[in-house]
Amino acid sequence: MKLYGDQKSGNCYKILLTAAWLEQPLEWVDVNIMQGATRTAEFMQKNPNGKIPLLEIEAGRYLAESNAIVNYLAWDTALLPQEKYLFSLVQQWQFFEQYSHEPYIAVARFINKYQGLPAERLAEYQAKQAGGHQALAVMEQQLATQPFLTGKQFTVADICLFAYTHVAHEGGFELAAYPAVVDWLERISKDPRFVPMANG
Amino acid sequence: MKLYGDQKSGNCYKILLTAAWLEQPLEWVDVNIMQGATRTAEFMQKNPNGKIPLLEIEAGRYLAESNAIVNYLAWDTALLPQEKYLFSLVQQWQFFEQYSHEPYIAVARFINKYQGLPAERLAEYQAKQAGGHQALAVMEQQLATQPFLTGKQFTVADICLFAYTHVAHEGGFELAAYPAVVDWLERISKDPRFVPMANG
Repeated sequence: MKLYGDQKSGNCYKILLTAAWLEQPLEWVDVNIMQGATRTAEFMQKNPNGKIPLLEIEAGRYLAESNAIVNYLAWDTALLPQEKYLFSLVQQWQFFEQYSHEPYIAVARFINKYQGLPAERLAEYQAKQAGGHQALAVMEQQLATQPFLTGKQFTVADICLFAYTHVAHEGGFELAAYPAVVDWLERISKDPRFVPMANG
Repeated sequence: MKLYGDQKSGNCYKILLTAAWLEQPLEWVDVNIMQGATRTAEFMQKNPNGKIPLLEIEAGRYLAESNAIVNYLAWDTALLPQEKYLFSLVQQWQFFEQYSHEPYIAVARFINKYQGLPAERLAEYQAKQAGGHQALAVMEQQLATQPFLTGKQFTVADICLFAYTHVAHEGGFELAAYPAVVDWLERISKDPRFVPMANG
């Protein structure tokens, strides 16, 4: 299987971390977003939404959306419980990530780290802070009572939320106020199956 | 099971439509977002993220996020294929809905329909138009070649995208430019299991 992605993207890192954890081989194809490589006619044929990451399962058979790809790779493994309620909780956290976490924390990080916090995006950057802190507070409340987001078991929900949370400080979010989140990050990054994100 | 929701919310309507399609009884508990009822201490104990819809499976056992709730209800039914790739495609469209569709189309509709397009949100409303049209174009491209989003079979992916697409005009999105989307909306709304959205 091929993965079209960008090494610096947290959404792509979710997939790399899942594949590493499961020891699944994955051929990496570099796609440079900054140079518009996801908007070429050739790429849009593969993913009409013009986004990475994109999984090519075989020629002509594609899957988009980072969390859907992660679940595809983790299907029938211990990272994705097949029991209905636990599976639903994994999805709950993944939808939370895409709607209530990533649009604040990842976007603030992008504006700050990759765009150098330009004056014309300063107001937007500041407006992202409240939403990001609300997402972190929701995670803190859950992780203060249990080791992982869905309970005692480490799942892809943890991988999907780890990706942008562990670099949240690059978007201006100090994690010291969230000790259970900090412990959880450390618990994950000390696992022997862990691989770090390319963070250039 | 109880569903905490607001009759006018498209995210809640996804769940009502799924339950109606499957003839699953669901006790409805009205929660008025406009009056801040999702931010009370009592509600935040049920869902720390302070959002509806919220499913109460039994006392103390909750599930948040509309698409996760829909999948819970549709689990092991024809609306949610259990084959790995088809299931993954359903999820792909649901994540697309939450990241690339709802934040443009549903938010523009909210600003226009429920807030009366106030001057201070006009620029934001206008900025939502391009993203909404891009999402509709992605759907059009897919639906021009097959009757439903994941292929020949009607699934919860269609229900989840139907919710805000069929009221997109209330956010300023004219659907005439998307004939395959219009046909798809009609195909769904003519099914005998269809129930309309409360659209006050």
